[in-house]
Amino acid sequence: MTDTAPRPTLEAVAARAGVSRATVSRVVNGGDGVRDILVERVRKAVDELGYVPNQAARSLVTRRHDAVAVVVAEPETRVFADPFFALQLRGISKELTAHDNQLVLLLTEGRDDHARVARYLAGGHVDGALVFSLHLDDPLPELIQRAGVPTVFGGRPGWSGDRREVVYVDSDNRGGARDAVRHLAGLGRTRIAHITGALDQTSAADRLDGYRDVMVDADPRLIAEADFTPAGGERAMRDLLERCPDVDAVFAANDLMASGALRVLRESGRRVPGDVAVIGFDDMRPVAEQTDPPLTTVRQDIEEMGRLMARLLLRGIDPGAPREGVGATPSSVVLPTTLVRRGSA
Amino acid sequence: MTDTAPRPTLEAVAARAGVSRATVSRVVNGGDGVRDILVERVRKAVDELGYVPNQAARSLVTRRHDAVAVVVAEPETRVFADPFFALQLRGISKELTAHDNQLVLLLTEGRDDHARVARYLAGGHVDGALVFSLHLDDPLPELIQRAGVPTVFGGRPGWSGDRREVVYVDSDNRGGARDAVRHLAGLGRTRIAHITGALDQTSAADRLDGYRDVMVDADPRLIAEADFTPAGGERAMRDLLERCPDVDAVFAANDLMASGALRVLRESGRRVPGDVAVIGFDDMRPVAEQTDPPLTTVRQDIEEMGRLMARLLLRGIDPGAPREGVGATPSSVVLPTTLVRRGSA
Repeated sequence: MTDTAPRPTLEAVAARAGVSRATVSRVVNGGDGVRDILVERVRKAVDELGYVPNQAARSLVTRRHDAVAVVVAEPETRVFADPFFALQLRGISKELTAHDNQLVLLLTEGRDDHARVARYLAGGHVDGALVFSLHLDDPLPELIQRAGVPTVFGGRPGWSGDRREVVYVDSDNRGGARDAVRHLAGLGRTRIAHITGALDQTSAADRLDGYRDVMVDADPRLIAEADFTPAGGERAMRDLLERCPDVDAVFAANDLMASGALRVLRESGRRVPGDVAVIGFDDMRPVAEQTDPPLTTVRQDIEEMGRLMARLLLRGIDPGAPREGVGATPSSVVLPTTLVRRGSA
Repeated sequence: MTDTAPRPTLEAVAARAGVSRATVSRVVNGGDGVRDILVERVRKAVDELGYVPNQAARSLVTRRHDAVAVVVAEPETRVFADPFFALQLRGISKELTAHDNQLVLLLTEGRDDHARVARYLAGGHVDGALVFSLHLDDPLPELIQRAGVPTVFGGRPGWSGDRREVVYVDSDNRGGARDAVRHLAGLGRTRIAHITGALDQTSAADRLDGYRDVMVDADPRLIAEADFTPAGGERAMRDLLERCPDVDAVFAANDLMASGALRVLRESGRRVPGDVAVIGFDDMRPVAEQTDPPLTTVRQDIEEMGRLMARLLLRGIDPGAPREGVGATPSSVVLPTTLVRRGSA
């Protein structure tokens, strides 16, 4: 598929199609003002000769780039620091490669760069986009919607605007959180704290809702807001120990924060799970297996979420092609979670 | 820059330029067969009206996408497992963002996907490419050269074909290796082993050459071939201990392999540096600081290498714009290394 043979010319296409050079040019440039029958004839000649004035013009004809953008709405430093993203990308990469689509990861330094990302998406370089880790006030979803590229979101988007045909893949965050807190209550714990994720993300808000479903009259001091990072988990655990020294259990909204909480508990001389039981969320390996003690956590299949996002998107781009496990019309999917018991609770 | 206002039409451009619709279409589609003076007039009208038939056609006019591809010639799993790539990407991302260029990371499952990557590069989606971690028999450099996009390589490419205007950024791998081995010899060590990186990469081959520069008559059993991964370092160290139990020093071609070697030495009951002194390469933090004992290593500024690659490429794409620390005509750069002494040697 690289440029080894001499390229067929515009003239050759015109001759083959029996139309003028200008007509070919017009069709290749989008086809406006050209009769359908001529458009068809030109496209046929283009196909037969393998005419490629350049890839940009070619994709105007085929309307396909065989490329899918992935946008993680976090600075690139976090994309590489948090194994969650690597896992989700692994699933996406496997699925796209299996369908010979190029994974185009658009990295940014931060939210200021999202307008540029939307410009790239609107620019006709990809057939669709997979977008994850959205925050509530991020302009990206609206920019993407305006860009008009088919999009599947990782995690339920939380913005309040127009939600026409929003397709997403998510885990049952609220149900998983309920399972975790019920398990802690079942161990006889009564002072159960929650370390939240970034509450401008629906995953964090849903897990907090799940905690509240069980802890209906929870002491508000038992809820410590954090940000899904290990350092945030450490800070939150220190705050919790200070304001509620009688805390006997912690449900952290992800494993990285739980690992930070475990470090702080150890430093403060508390035994886990003896004094304080700890549960995370994700079942991120090796993190969850290598903490001391190994982490009891709520498992979500992150790689499978990525795979499913890619599958749904490809289905939306090319509705003719059947995809395993995906219905005819893409619609959102919420995957179940499971509690995985290790040493910490 | 997103599509908020109604788009100006092809007709409006034609009227403004005082030419026919077909002429505008032809110019937008590459300009062949149109007199220069008309091309100029159309481009002026396009600029004035902000006409964007679509981004693909626009970029035919401006010839710029404000996007740069990054290709790491490794499976995506290694890209996310080896902090070397995250560091290099950090430098690249900072530099591209500072010039409002989009970083487009093209991920693959492996070498079989490199033809697809080259197709994307040839497809008019980016202004240039930054390529690193090449292996000797990878068809990628030749495919990229045929694709005709400006490219800067990370690390000296080792292929033997046509090397017209190859621009790369590298570290002084051979000099750094010499410094490491001389330091070990200066400590009085005589049975100095070398754990190599993947020898189909010039960085690994150059470090082996540096080792041999000092250890002119080295016992060939002291050289253990590995692959830059921690597991590879462990395997190599086990082999070395078996065939040369009297080994008293190890120079590993990167820090990840050195960390693997340290684990094996500890398991085998050898004291570091008492029984065996160990030196790595990279000064990858936190790896090099968190080994037991902390790792003496050859420092290369990986993030700066990434920044410099991006700077050289942008200079090549847009020769008019001055870039700090980069001459008028991009040429390859080899950065010096420094020995950083910690506990292991």
